[in-house]
Amino acid sequence: MSINVKRYKKDCGISYTLGTTLTIELLQKRSDIVEGVLLHSQIEGVGAERIKELCNEKGIRFETNDKAFNVLSQKENCFAIGLFKTEVPSILPDTDHVVLVNPSNSGNLGTIMRSCLGFGIKDIAIIIPCVDIFDPKTVRSSMGALFGLRVSLYSSFDEYLASVGERNCYPFMLKACSTLSKANFISPASLVFGNESSGLPDEFLNIGSPVIIKHSQEIDSLNLPTAVGLALYKLTEKRFN
Amino acid sequence: MSINVKRYKKDCGISYTLGTTLTIELLQKRSDIVEGVLLHSQIEGVGAERIKELCNEKGIRFETNDKAFNVLSQKENCFAIGLFKTEVPSILPDTDHVVLVNPSNSGNLGTIMRSCLGFGIKDIAIIIPCVDIFDPKTVRSSMGALFGLRVSLYSSFDEYLASVGERNCYPFMLKACSTLSKANFISPASLVFGNESSGLPDEFLNIGSPVIIKHSQEIDSLNLPTAVGLALYKLTEKRFN
Repeated sequence: MSINVKRYKKDCGISYTLGTTLTIELLQKRSDIVEGVLLHSQIEGVGAERIKELCNEKGIRFETNDKAFNVLSQKENCFAIGLFKTEVPSILPDTDHVVLVNPSNSGNLGTIMRSCLGFGIKDIAIIIPCVDIFDPKTVRSSMGALFGLRVSLYSSFDEYLASVGERNCYPFMLKACSTLSKANFISPASLVFGNESSGLPDEFLNIGSPVIIKHSQEIDSLNLPTAVGLALYKLTEKRFN
Repeated sequence: MSINVKRYKKDCGISYTLGTTLTIELLQKRSDIVEGVLLHSQIEGVGAERIKELCNEKGIRFETNDKAFNVLSQKENCFAIGLFKTEVPSILPDTDHVVLVNPSNSGNLGTIMRSCLGFGIKDIAIIIPCVDIFDPKTVRSSMGALFGLRVSLYSSFDEYLASVGERNCYPFMLKACSTLSKANFISPASLVFGNESSGLPDEFLNIGSPVIIKHSQEIDSLNLPTAVGLALYKLTEKRFN
């Protein structure tokens, strides 16, 4: 029986890892959600061997199906695709969190996931509306970090707070007075970031301890993943150095 | 006489700002290199007014030409395009520099430009081969930061050093021993970063004072613009806070 292949659609329950390294990452970290693996007839080398080895080890079916690549991948250099159920563990209430309010760009969200895992922050809360966390573009730009994280969606920031209980919130805002340089984050901390274009609404000035990352007047704002990266570095500096 | 429109080609001497805000940025910062501005018949609002005002003020021709948008822009929401000569000032020898060795992704390069301008580092040296600094995608992801920067290309790191003279070099490498947290950058500093996939070659371990940005074992590396952002923050922390 061949693996069922359909172009990705949000909320259809299945997404894809497009690429060999990404598919290996999926098989290593979340074999529990893998439905199958597609290989291109041109795949070769250690990547191909590793994928087959992992599939055999974990009892996951794989098949060669070049046509599926035309349907699922726009990239020419994609030779392996993993199919996985769009399931991710919920965030824990007592750890440090990154909270993203209405993130709108899949590349940015993936990059933020990669930084979170890189700095050991495994819980991401997202306030909807937001970009699709399982979009193959998000997964790809996360470099597989999604498979090491816990992510929960909330319909509002209030709903998030009600769900996780007492925390120290640090909304990142250009209107804040206290600088990142002087910030003293206390766990369990929630580092809160707004949408790429609009930032956080003014009402966040009244929540927790707002923080500004100072920069020159020559740009409107830092790129969102860069801002998150700076905050994560500051939060975890003592843990990694 | 109508403005001559051709699909972007590297080294053809002309590039494009695709979008209203980006075109305003170009007109404000580098009107000296602008060849003309194309407006879509559907453009409206303050952006359109501002572009016309700037063009009139600086004696730059603009015209409505909907067909040109089909040729130059893949995005549906692009209603203004600036044509500019691909000219950028050379870096200064005595300032702090960001040095990028073989950067390969236009989105990353643009994001790095934005962070550089944001932290007041206006000189970027790039070792070729590299992604095209004037590609409309680079310009777009820089959010116009390119127009506030000085950029020079070199065929090797040695050529760069020979050109700029004595400096304090800080190559960012996973094999370095000294951490960013303990780094003490001394001006004129060169923060040096490798290619997205391969990083810096080992020989950079013998140049200046190599630095590592520590992260968890769960990712292979940080995203390049995030790493550059962290280094820039550290270099300029005292200037902005």
